[in-house]
Amino acid sequence: MPNITFLPANVSIEIDSDENLLRAAMKAGVHINSSCGGAGVCNKCRIFVEQGEVKGETLPEGGWKACQTFPVSDVVVRVPVESEVDRRVLRRPIIQKAASWIKTQAESMRWELHPVIQKSLVHLPRPSLQDNLSDLDRLRRELGQDRSQAISLGVDSEVLFNLSESLRKKNWDATISLMECTEREVHRLIRVEPGDTTGKHLAVAVDVGTTTVSAQLIDLNTGETLEEVSDYNPQISYGEDVISRMEFARKGDGHQILQKKIIECLNRLIGELCSKSGKEIEALSLISLAGNTVMIHFLLGLDTRFLRSNPYTPVATHFPPVRAVDLGIDVPRHVYLFLAPCVASYVGADIVAGVVGIGINRHPELTLFIDIGTNGEIVLGNQDWMACAACSAGPAFEGGGMKHGMRATTGAIEVVHIHPNTFEPMILTIGGKRAKGICGSGIISLLAGLFMAGVLDQRGKFYRDLDTDRVRSGRDGWEYVVIDAKSNAIDQDIVFTEADIENLIRAKGAMFAGYLTLLESLGMGFEDLERVILAGNFGSYLDLDQAITIGLLPDIPRDRFFFAGNTSLLGAKASAISLPVTRELHRVAKMMTHFDLSSNPRFMDHYVSSLFLPHTDLDLFPSVKVD
Amino acid sequence: MPNITFLPANVSIEIDSDENLLRAAMKAGVHINSSCGGAGVCNKCRIFVEQGEVKGETLPEGGWKACQTFPVSDVVVRVPVESEVDRRVLRRPIIQKAASWIKTQAESMRWELHPVIQKSLVHLPRPSLQDNLSDLDRLRRELGQDRSQAISLGVDSEVLFNLSESLRKKNWDATISLMECTEREVHRLIRVEPGDTTGKHLAVAVDVGTTTVSAQLIDLNTGETLEEVSDYNPQISYGEDVISRMEFARKGDGHQILQKKIIECLNRLIGELCSKSGKEIEALSLISLAGNTVMIHFLLGLDTRFLRSNPYTPVATHFPPVRAVDLGIDVPRHVYLFLAPCVASYVGADIVAGVVGIGINRHPELTLFIDIGTNGEIVLGNQDWMACAACSAGPAFEGGGMKHGMRATTGAIEVVHIHPNTFEPMILTIGGKRAKGICGSGIISLLAGLFMAGVLDQRGKFYRDLDTDRVRSGRDGWEYVVIDAKSNAIDQDIVFTEADIENLIRAKGAMFAGYLTLLESLGMGFEDLERVILAGNFGSYLDLDQAITIGLLPDIPRDRFFFAGNTSLLGAKASAISLPVTRELHRVAKMMTHFDLSSNPRFMDHYVSSLFLPHTDLDLFPSVKVD
Repeated sequence: MPNITFLPANVSIEIDSDENLLRAAMKAGVHINSSCGGAGVCNKCRIFVEQGEVKGETLPEGGWKACQTFPVSDVVVRVPVESEVDRRVLRRPIIQKAASWIKTQAESMRWELHPVIQKSLVHLPRPSLQDNLSDLDRLRRELGQDRSQAISLGVDSEVLFNLSESLRKKNWDATISLMECTEREVHRLIRVEPGDTTGKHLAVAVDVGTTTVSAQLIDLNTGETLEEVSDYNPQISYGEDVISRMEFARKGDGHQILQKKIIECLNRLIGELCSKSGKEIEALSLISLAGNTVMIHFLLGLDTRFLRSNPYTPVATHFPPVRAVDLGIDVPRHVYLFLAPCVASYVGADIVAGVVGIGINRHPELTLFIDIGTNGEIVLGNQDWMACAACSAGPAFEGGGMKHGMRATTGAIEVVHIHPNTFEPMILTIGGKRAKGICGSGIISLLAGLFMAGVLDQRGKFYRDLDTDRVRSGRDGWEYVVIDAKSNAIDQDIVFTEADIENLIRAKGAMFAGYLTLLESLGMGFEDLERVILAGNFGSYLDLDQAITIGLLPDIPRDRFFFAGNTSLLGAKASAISLPVTRELHRVAKMMTHFDLSSNPRFMDHYVSSLFLPHTDLDLFPSVKVD
Repeated sequence: MPNITFLPANVSIEIDSDENLLRAAMKAGVHINSSCGGAGVCNKCRIFVEQGEVKGETLPEGGWKACQTFPVSDVVVRVPVESEVDRRVLRRPIIQKAASWIKTQAESMRWELHPVIQKSLVHLPRPSLQDNLSDLDRLRRELGQDRSQAISLGVDSEVLFNLSESLRKKNWDATISLMECTEREVHRLIRVEPGDTTGKHLAVAVDVGTTTVSAQLIDLNTGETLEEVSDYNPQISYGEDVISRMEFARKGDGHQILQKKIIECLNRLIGELCSKSGKEIEALSLISLAGNTVMIHFLLGLDTRFLRSNPYTPVATHFPPVRAVDLGIDVPRHVYLFLAPCVASYVGADIVAGVVGIGINRHPELTLFIDIGTNGEIVLGNQDWMACAACSAGPAFEGGGMKHGMRATTGAIEVVHIHPNTFEPMILTIGGKRAKGICGSGIISLLAGLFMAGVLDQRGKFYRDLDTDRVRSGRDGWEYVVIDAKSNAIDQDIVFTEADIENLIRAKGAMFAGYLTLLESLGMGFEDLERVILAGNFGSYLDLDQAITIGLLPDIPRDRFFFAGNTSLLGAKASAISLPVTRELHRVAKMMTHFDLSSNPRFMDHYVSSLFLPHTDLDLFPSVKVD
């Protein structure tokens, strides 16, 4: 790995040789102006190579485009800086990537590879007049069940339809699929295939979010993820948030439309997973799905009328496995859909899957789990107890309700640094492509960056008198121009407005008030937290200091924080490949105590106090310096 | 009950006042010529009333038509007889009705009224913010299950679709239906209805025979049969017996056609049950069905290819409950179809249901169970052990393959007596309607009557030289004219041919050879039999002596015989109303030892010896006098 040294800051960092020097600078905490996000368009990210060899694009006026230049050897690079201030400001690392943690954690957890549906090869003795049991009893006998116990093997009637053919086709070699999921009925025969197909054993894990639907194709023999795809939840056309969708569902055939839309989306994603991986759909054994309570109700076609209004009762929180075709999912008939359980109307299966997926239920440390999705949900607890709450934070951190918000996909601005003197941004987009909008991590770093650079005041309003064209009064009020139209992928300037910021402050305020209320309710404070796990659809960058700076996360030692990404999808996957995890999902869902914040007066107090950057009470944020 | 005395025989009998005098004579064992079966057409059943009062039809030449005349008080009747011979011949009672036995037996068994699906009324507390469990968990809590055990209550996902509505519609009063059938999963929630519908709890019990399909509507709250209907199995158009139907099934979409036909038939019968009883289909909770192994395979759409040929393996013998709509049965979605288990390819669920329905499994007496349906099946055993065999008897005793055979329904000749001097018949039809054909009991009494009257020899051939026009050489060879065209309901003479008789002798021979072989295999003889139970679709009359006379039944003391009617339907009903019976069905099906007669050389020997009336070895029939 080449070592890159940035001058004049004299900061060094090792990077992969396929990483460009702009990205290296961001990691090293060195500001380089870059107005196009690394797409090679704005020509602002000029650097000079003082030692070593690089390859890439040079600029006509001399120097290299950092975003298009890669190291060939160790390199010493000089960044043109305007003053010593830059050096001081930029000495601290910008990025706190905790994503590596969750990988280690997942490896150390080593979910027992024991899928909820298991395949095995059987060879049956050929029948004779002396041994002419029915085909099913022959199979049962082989499964080591004597006939008096045979009734304890559940059998899908579907299995019988081609049982004779399947057993005989490959000379009495056959592969059986047994479901092992409920506690009472130990095994259920759900499929018999001719010959040895044990190698073809796939699952699709899905997280149905209000905004985004993500799916992975998983090899159940190895636990490996073969492919991952995602898309917007097409229900968005009928309402951005769950409330407006439930409102839509009440009228006419609204309910059916929403169900149809999400099923279509699942079908599309499953199709993509198959075509991208080159796997055939027949190899699919099961679908494991997590999502919030409302999304699961829509998916199953359940009534959301009573979930929507006081006292907020879901139809159910634990769901039996459903034959996927019965919901219109376009898969073979044998495929079952397993749904992670929910806790309450606004603490769904996504949270339960997340908590179990990353293993909070297996560790003694007091952990605060924060899921910043379309809504904010929090869980406090450890292996022995858990409390949870929903914060009604809204989808701001997923890009929802933001003028140029978008989800974390190619072309999303994922990290921004604002120069405290020039107010010029240093920007990276996902994939280094021309920007289309700003995703969660980009929004956090923009808000924090503008605040830290002195562009925003504590109330989240732009200072009107700054010496920069980037802050201006636009069509929607005051705004900061992040990338102008000619350097981005859309035909207008990408801006960040005061309305966006108000939205964000309300969202982070609700989250923070949630942490405080939940901790207080249990007689604890931030100092008791041993771990904070942050889940959500951010990009690969999330700056912890920035998130604390805006008051989204509590100001406690940084080494207690972990960033876990889409934990709902992680839990859905873990549930697919591991029956013990599936059982844990149900245990955890039942043990979680749900706190209703909406009816809690302390929550409202905390919320109002949190509508500042970072907070009204600066004692809560000792490490955030506000001038 | 009026007392009727018949002169000159001087035999008295009590009858219901709505029974006609021809029927009374048959019961009393008095022969009255009657060529039309009691339809009032032939005018031959003339009697004179010597004392007492009657109402009915008189004849122009004097006297009354016995078949159209009913007693008003005690009556003394004179039958014009040709000679004293009549008196002697007719002194023994013609009819041995054992049907009353099974009623007593059924009452004494008192199947525990505990349907496999149970309804109960629940009242749930209204949810509040302090108690906002999901609707399903609220219901679970009410069912006395704490949340940690909640997973042991299986839930049909269907239930969830209208759960919220159902619970709220009648102010949190609701009726739940729980299925309790498999051993592992103790309860399964399959339906929730608003308000109290516990009074509406019906089952349909069905026997799917190769020839006839019979169905009963049962009130699961009382165990009472509300209505009964039956029809030919419409698969008959594709083959009279199971072998030819399986042959048809192999080709093209033959299988689907047969399945469609039987489902259509079930739909028609269920519709009739509802319209006749005035019950709504929504009150239906379950269908309990028995039938032979082939019929059940066709019904479920299972492959019969391997069932048909050596080594005769069914796909399965025990079947999981199936959602009826999934088979195309036109009932509400919540209705489950429960299938009685089979033993082997040719000993089906009809036999298991029969044996358990009449309770052989609950008595210590050594019992021979004989089902004379489309095929003949026999079971030997008691509460501790059972052996069974199929006899390939063919459908002759159900009217199959007979020139004028028909099933036991209105217009069927159900009992015949032949005058030993004149060879004139005394005939009763079911319902006293003009005859359309001859049903099982009629066939037996015809064959026995003709044999006893000296019209037939021991080989089953007509004596050619008798002084009667009724025996003649017809289009299909020699035949006996039972009812001529002008006195019956069809436009030709109803005849009984030598070909019919050959058929019958082969059928009864196969049955008898079966009894002998099974008994011998277990080291027993007829003398060991404590009970013989005869099942089958006969009319309400079955003459035991006649059945013994032709060698269909063994010649043992008459008080050991019991006639049980359609025991398959009886068992299907018992299974519907009683979970213990359902469990017994499975236990019995597993404990039965199946003997394959087709590969047994002793069976063939016995068969050949049985092709005479009553048998080659007359020592086996001491009470049958053959001149």
